[in-house]
Amino acid sequence: MSHNSFGHLFRVTTWGESHGPALGCVIDGVPPGIELTEGDIQPWMDKRRPGQSKFTTQRKEPDEVKILSGTFSDDRINTPVTTGTPISLLIENKDQRSKDYSDIRDKYRPGHADFTYDAKYGVRDYRGGGRQSARETAARVAAGAIARKILSHILGHDVTVRGALVQMGPHGIDRDRWDWNETGKNPFWCPDPEAAASWETYLDSVRKAGSSCGAVIEVAASGVPAGLGAPIYGKLDADIAQALMTINAVKGVEIGNGFAAAALSGEENADEIRMVGGKPHFASNNAGGVLGGISSGQDVVVRFAVKPTSSILSPVKTITKDNQETDVVTKGRHDPCVGIRAVPVGEAMVACVLADHLLRHRAQTGSV
Amino acid sequence: MSHNSFGHLFRVTTWGESHGPALGCVIDGVPPGIELTEGDIQPWMDKRRPGQSKFTTQRKEPDEVKILSGTFSDDRINTPVTTGTPISLLIENKDQRSKDYSDIRDKYRPGHADFTYDAKYGVRDYRGGGRQSARETAARVAAGAIARKILSHILGHDVTVRGALVQMGPHGIDRDRWDWNETGKNPFWCPDPEAAASWETYLDSVRKAGSSCGAVIEVAASGVPAGLGAPIYGKLDADIAQALMTINAVKGVEIGNGFAAAALSGEENADEIRMVGGKPHFASNNAGGVLGGISSGQDVVVRFAVKPTSSILSPVKTITKDNQETDVVTKGRHDPCVGIRAVPVGEAMVACVLADHLLRHRAQTGSV
Amino acid sequence: MSHNSFGHLFRVTTWGESHGPALGCVIDGVPPGIELTEGDIQPWMDKRRPGQSKFTTQRKEPDEVKILSGTFSDDRINTPVTTGTPISLLIENKDQRSKDYSDIRDKYRPGHADFTYDAKYGVRDYRGGGRQSARETAARVAAGAIARKILSHILGHDVTVRGALVQMGPHGIDRDRWDWNETGKNPFWCPDPEAAASWETYLDSVRKAGSSCGAVIEVAASGVPAGLGAPIYGKLDADIAQALMTINAVKGVEIGNGFAAAALSGEENADEIRMVGGKPHFASNNAGGVLGGISSGQDVVVRFAVKPTSSILSPVKTITKDNQETDVVTKGRHDPCVGIRAVPVGEAMVACVLADHLLRHRAQTGSV
Amino acid sequence: MSHNSFGHLFRVTTWGESHGPALGCVIDGVPPGIELTEGDIQPWMDKRRPGQSKFTTQRKEPDEVKILSGTFSDDRINTPVTTGTPISLLIENKDQRSKDYSDIRDKYRPGHADFTYDAKYGVRDYRGGGRQSARETAARVAAGAIARKILSHILGHDVTVRGALVQMGPHGIDRDRWDWNETGKNPFWCPDPEAAASWETYLDSVRKAGSSCGAVIEVAASGVPAGLGAPIYGKLDADIAQALMTINAVKGVEIGNGFAAAALSGEENADEIRMVGGKPHFASNNAGGVLGGISSGQDVVVRFAVKPTSSILSPVKTITKDNQETDVVTKGRHDPCVGIRAVPVGEAMVACVLADHLLRHRAQTGSV
Repeated sequence: MSHNSFGHLFRVTTWGESHGPALGCVIDGVPPGIELTEGDIQPWMDKRRPGQSKFTTQRKEPDEVKILSGTFSDDRINTPVTTGTPISLLIENKDQRSKDYSDIRDKYRPGHADFTYDAKYGVRDYRGGGRQSARETAARVAAGAIARKILSHILGHDVTVRGALVQMGPHGIDRDRWDWNETGKNPFWCPDPEAAASWETYLDSVRKAGSSCGAVIEVAASGVPAGLGAPIYGKLDADIAQALMTINAVKGVEIGNGFAAAALSGEENADEIRMVGGKPHFASNNAGGVLGGISSGQDVVVRFAVKPTSSILSPVKTITKDNQETDVVTKGRHDPCVGIRAVPVGEAMVACVLADHLLRHRAQTGSV
Repeated sequence: MSHNSFGHLFRVTTWGESHGPALGCVIDGVPPGIELTEGDIQPWMDKRRPGQSKFTTQRKEPDEVKILSGTFSDDRINTPVTTGTPISLLIENKDQRSKDYSDIRDKYRPGHADFTYDAKYGVRDYRGGGRQSARETAARVAAGAIARKILSHILGHDVTVRGALVQMGPHGIDRDRWDWNETGKNPFWCPDPEAAASWETYLDSVRKAGSSCGAVIEVAASGVPAGLGAPIYGKLDADIAQALMTINAVKGVEIGNGFAAAALSGEENADEIRMVGGKPHFASNNAGGVLGGISSGQDVVVRFAVKPTSSILSPVKTITKDNQETDVVTKGRHDPCVGIRAVPVGEAMVACVLADHLLRHRAQTGSV
Repeated sequence: MSHNSFGHLFRVTTWGESHGPALGCVIDGVPPGIELTEGDIQPWMDKRRPGQSKFTTQRKEPDEVKILSGTFSDDRINTPVTTGTPISLLIENKDQRSKDYSDIRDKYRPGHADFTYDAKYGVRDYRGGGRQSARETAARVAAGAIARKILSHILGHDVTVRGALVQMGPHGIDRDRWDWNETGKNPFWCPDPEAAASWETYLDSVRKAGSSCGAVIEVAASGVPAGLGAPIYGKLDADIAQALMTINAVKGVEIGNGFAAAALSGEENADEIRMVGGKPHFASNNAGGVLGGISSGQDVVVRFAVKPTSSILSPVKTITKDNQETDVVTKGRHDPCVGIRAVPVGEAMVACVLADHLLRHRAQTGSV
Repeated sequence: MSHNSFGHLFRVTTWGESHGPALGCVIDGVPPGIELTEGDIQPWMDKRRPGQSKFTTQRKEPDEVKILSGTFSDDRINTPVTTGTPISLLIENKDQRSKDYSDIRDKYRPGHADFTYDAKYGVRDYRGGGRQSARETAARVAAGAIARKILSHILGHDVTVRGALVQMGPHGIDRDRWDWNETGKNPFWCPDPEAAASWETYLDSVRKAGSSCGAVIEVAASGVPAGLGAPIYGKLDADIAQALMTINAVKGVEIGNGFAAAALSGEENADEIRMVGGKPHFASNNAGGVLGGISSGQDVVVRFAVKPTSSILSPVKTITKDNQETDVVTKGRHDPCVGIRAVPVGEAMVACVLADHLLRHRAQTGSV
């Protein structure tokens, strides 16, 4: 058991604080013989990297990943390959701004984990949020890049795991306009260009007001073979739910129809099956690609809700470490909508869970 | 790693199929010296037991729990106490109705795990759903009863973990009428007596039509001390989310404001803190009692969505094991709304996660 | 983490006390599609069963195993096969002799875990040793039988795991006379018939004197493919060492040359390699079949030392639970040399570790 | 499950290869509020550091540990304290000598893991042994330093864990001359000064002959409270055995009388108990401080055997990766007796297991 690890056979252990010298992770269980360089990881890091638009924190971090172990090359093996030994990844912190922390070192920021960290540990690194900072998710994204490589390597085809922002604050999208290609063309990973345009105006006003808003992210994985997961406590969707709930600020997770399924009848929610092209074909995907905790071969479709950034400019009533009543205003370099940068993190977590379950499936059944 | 276990320090391993001779679980990590008899467990079993109203399956199961190990009494210790060794619980199956399974042995019932079990394992016990049957949850409820005892034993006060049905099909409740005492007075665990009355009519029509509906359950835990959980992958809410998602038919989980938080501003979602009676007091509980994955001392409040029962009388298009197209009608003794019996199961899972985290918290910090 | 489980992917959780109604285990991770009946397990149980000669405890236990879950058969599948779901095994206690425990309920028997159980838990089931009784090993032997089936099923050939007593008290064997067939012909599993004959006289005198003696057991596994194990903390030999040290009364474990290797030079201890019949062939097996924690394809050869039975008729100085000085004489039905019945248990543990590592190997590498 | 982690609640994950840029570990589960600086770790590193006498490898490595996360200090907390978050330790490799590896890149060195790594993974970093190099043990020693701090912090007194070489090649010691103070006065950690003197001559001749020898190390832990460990698979001695067997070249482990116990009678092996100074007192420690897997409060005394270094100058018959017969001579900077540097590593592993079990004990019982 480890509070800072996830996965079982594809196992990721992360470490690091927001304002320490570095952060990183150790990834164990990676199959041998997979070509892997920093170049395979960096594009995903760049997707999560802060400071890329005015809508995310202005902290400047190159987020360059260094592979410290677990791969090998020589004059006969040109591209480094994994060796089956643990892969240690290091990401240096470069822009830990030296500042005055007197305002938050003793004041508990509502919505943050300041109060609860102190309740648990009696001490915390308050600089930039310390361990509770979303900077920790950089390590997840790096792990996700390796998870994708494992999926492709074992399955012989890519598993496409991609995310999109489907709600910003109270504003949703028109799913009829969904175009995955659009997600890379706006700063929000929004698949609906019209929604993206209106969100820009909305979020700008939120940002200028020093306020914040929440979001809903959808992640879909295509190319997942049937059979991943396990009946009871090893359910694929339960593990994805857990993984997504470990992302900072996430307050809800659903799969397929999710909460909307509660309002449906059994007839409406059924995914009928027919043979198409000699293969089983589901007429719909209300289940989100998972039945009884096991993948059905359909796209795995999940959504998660991110609360509004707790760091806002309005003064909020709180107490100090010494139980004195006070107000706190959270200045600094914050994302007005942390949900945006949660998109690549959500993708990474789903990829990691899929890689873990692919290895678990292979262990028990010998398949794939 | 085990597909059929949950928890880390309070660790439950369940086993058994719907139509096998028995089902049960082994519970490891229970602290010594806690008084425990079957009488402590049975009332919770009775809450989940089938056949108690016309709205649940008519399968008649006494669900009597036998404790096979892990407790001890003699002429000096009158009431059996836990000894710190594993507690094995056995529940015999009594009403496995002998019937003709020819209709489902080869046909995949949409919404059930028939297709995916076969895709994974190539073989399955199709009688009554085998391992995928919700009968497995009887073992969870038994474990939950022991988890409650552990919480009280260590904390010196009860942790009240109770659930309520807050939506049946498309029909919600009026939260202003919420009365926990009402939950025991209707067959739905509904806290709003007016809603309960209308649901009765509604569900009767669903049942008579051979259809089914979904539901949303809310579970609240009071008396949870601040400090349970852990920052990153050991988050209390992430573990609860996973635990609830492992319950049959659950498609979504949320904590506090959950998905609704996405539509709020940071100001609206903040839980301000003041000192009341010399103690920190949150003015609201939008967070659902968990901040940064660690309990705040407020009530832990979660909700989960249950899809409509997949077993319906309407014929549904499907295929056979041999890829032949066919229709399936699922007769049998089914719950028209499985969400009802998910209430005590959800309670049990939350209790189990809390007990696990209490032990984990004690390990690392020495507190409580 | 679980105090009462072992293995990772082939995972066994045992439960039960010596004088409770039953004992058993739950085995998770078993691949599907393996034919399995009680008849596959019982012969191994019989090998460990007490009361088979005057040299083992006279407690009469049929040790009949019941499979409660995890297999399936119907009119098309004649022999039950594993389904991939947990296998629950139950062994009833039949001969818990009703007796007066007043002598050991409060007195700590030196060499037994009475003192330490009380130090840890403050309470213990003292009847027949409770959870510390070697009766728990019945569940291990049952698990070992299933492990053997998994090895054969996946590898396509049997892995022969067999044990022999190579030392009884101070008396060893002549390895030149080693004949595996002899192990079944004497009550000691001794591979040297001449040693067996002399041990019979020796142990009879020990037994009549109410004394006891220790033993050394050797277990060899043939047919293990190269590649099982892992470099660092997942070493095959480290896991075997742990598994054997969990058997009651075991005080030492070694592999290959073991402690004798310390006295050798690098030249003497080297296992040179040549090609024989087109395959790598080691000229010797000083390593015991494991290099760097990974199997080499040679026989895996381990030994473990069992201390003399602590229950003896001579009075021994001790204290009571209340810190009163006293003497204790341990009457009852004891094995004068518990090492004898440790032979099938040691075999079972090695088989279990091998099955676990085979699944782990398959997970990471896809091999076998 | 992780091949590169050990411990459950005090959990260490190591990474790194002999000739990569660095190696290190992540330690999770450390209690908060323990003062910790690099200065607490470095002395233990220095004890293991190579190149300190002519009897160990001449590789020059400062083995300076950097703490990258998990501690915190500010202008109010002068000495950094642990925060309960994972501690990442980094040790740079400084003296990876650039050399020609053509001799071992394709030839399997008998006694090394070359053959088995290739059998498992199909690829390996052969430079300096890659992951199989004993350089990995530097991370263990660092973890051990932190384990010691945890033991002191929780117990309120030091647990003294110290090791000694008790046999070099065929040469033992006179236990009547045992003096712990002597262990620091000779290059062998030998507690018997006369033996140390004779070993110096012996090992010099071994070294000059390009040969090698094995060793036996004893580790004793004083100050361990009664109650650590668990009855069945969580036995303290089983976990120590596993931990020691994961050290490179270890072939055997024993506790207390160990293998010698097999030759004793129950009377000889009994540790009688009396009250001394109002406390239970054992008249002897044949058990090595563990009964039924649980510590008794006596010193925990274990021994482990290290085989002779496999790297020798004599040519040894072997094969290449391509199954060609050849000879191999292992030049390089090797320890003629790797057992010497295994002493601080063995100490560290015992300290780590004790810390893990202390946390596990606290979790289940609330004690200490």
